[in-house]
Amino acid sequence: MNERLEKQLRFALEADKEKNIVRQTLISDGSRRENDAEHAWHAALMAVLLHEHSSRKIDLLRTVTMLLIHDIVEIDAGDTYAYDEQAKRSQRDRESKAADRIFGLLPDDQRDSLRALWEEFEAGETPEAQFARTMDNLQPMTLNNATGGRVWKERGVALHQILKRNEITKAGSAVLWDYAKEHIINPHHEMGNISY
Amino acid sequence: MNERLEKQLRFALEADKEKNIVRQTLISDGSRRENDAEHAWHAALMAVLLHEHSSRKIDLLRTVTMLLIHDIVEIDAGDTYAYDEQAKRSQRDRESKAADRIFGLLPDDQRDSLRALWEEFEAGETPEAQFARTMDNLQPMTLNNATGGRVWKERGVALHQILKRNEITKAGSAVLWDYAKEHIINPHHEMGNISY
Repeated sequence: MNERLEKQLRFALEADKEKNIVRQTLISDGSRRENDAEHAWHAALMAVLLHEHSSRKIDLLRTVTMLLIHDIVEIDAGDTYAYDEQAKRSQRDRESKAADRIFGLLPDDQRDSLRALWEEFEAGETPEAQFARTMDNLQPMTLNNATGGRVWKERGVALHQILKRNEITKAGSAVLWDYAKEHIINPHHEMGNISY
Repeated sequence: MNERLEKQLRFALEADKEKNIVRQTLISDGSRRENDAEHAWHAALMAVLLHEHSSRKIDLLRTVTMLLIHDIVEIDAGDTYAYDEQAKRSQRDRESKAADRIFGLLPDDQRDSLRALWEEFEAGETPEAQFARTMDNLQPMTLNNATGGRVWKERGVALHQILKRNEITKAGSAVLWDYAKEHIINPHHEMGNISY
């Protein structure tokens, strides 16, 4: 029993390092960038609040669990900015090695089930994974909106990049994507914060 | 539809302020104190990892949801340190007013269900609430352990205070409490980080 519990606690302590993985997104008061732990909490909370808008019926616990762990590989692999095409090419390989090490800290059954859940999130095909990806994209979008589109503008993000990235947002929830397009993306495009 | 969704997104944006509520606990590398959003994520993740150790059968989604929202009232009421007896006397009143305002941002049905879940967590009587409280206590304990008991020592925390606070930890999980007592509390007491 103690060996099993020690592995679980070892993983929980390792996960703490997500608090030091800084993302591009600013928190809503614009004072600083948020980290992976904060982002995961916020996206999981948004799944609880918004799951009624999922395009397909979902198991909310599986979706929330995916969101709690979805960025844990970044402890080793670092945060890859959504619109950094060069970094994205090596991302899959770096993240797969990280998953081997980090999920490998767990007891075998949990290593397998949480690794599978992470792979499912990455593949983005099941209803749960698609809605989790919708939250993963909508969460920073609402913060970028709250901070006047600063991050989009500073990074020179273009509308076609946002539309491509958010194909999966739409698959997870047409309602949320339509809302985001009308109330966030289009206005920031018109204001020039999102370029052509 | 839009009015309902706007209320949900308004609440999600308000929740972002938890990222600025700083707690006493240091993150595992000792570099800084953690905030409520990070703590909630970490405690929810630990519930996913450790729920098999609950003393009673629990609905994991309800437990995780409780943990995701359990500190949201601190946006208005501030963080009350577990061993600050003076602040704790006014805590209930401050937090109840905060709950009125913050949950009140939501559509009525979600206001009622999430408020009830928060009250259930506070009351600490159901299996889900007790296990959530176990995570709420175990999470900072593992971080205090990782940082050499610094926070206990600096704040002059005494063993009897920890034992009193953790009566509910034991109720939620005898296994986890026994482990924590043997491997964390007792050693730090012997080292003098936790006083008499």
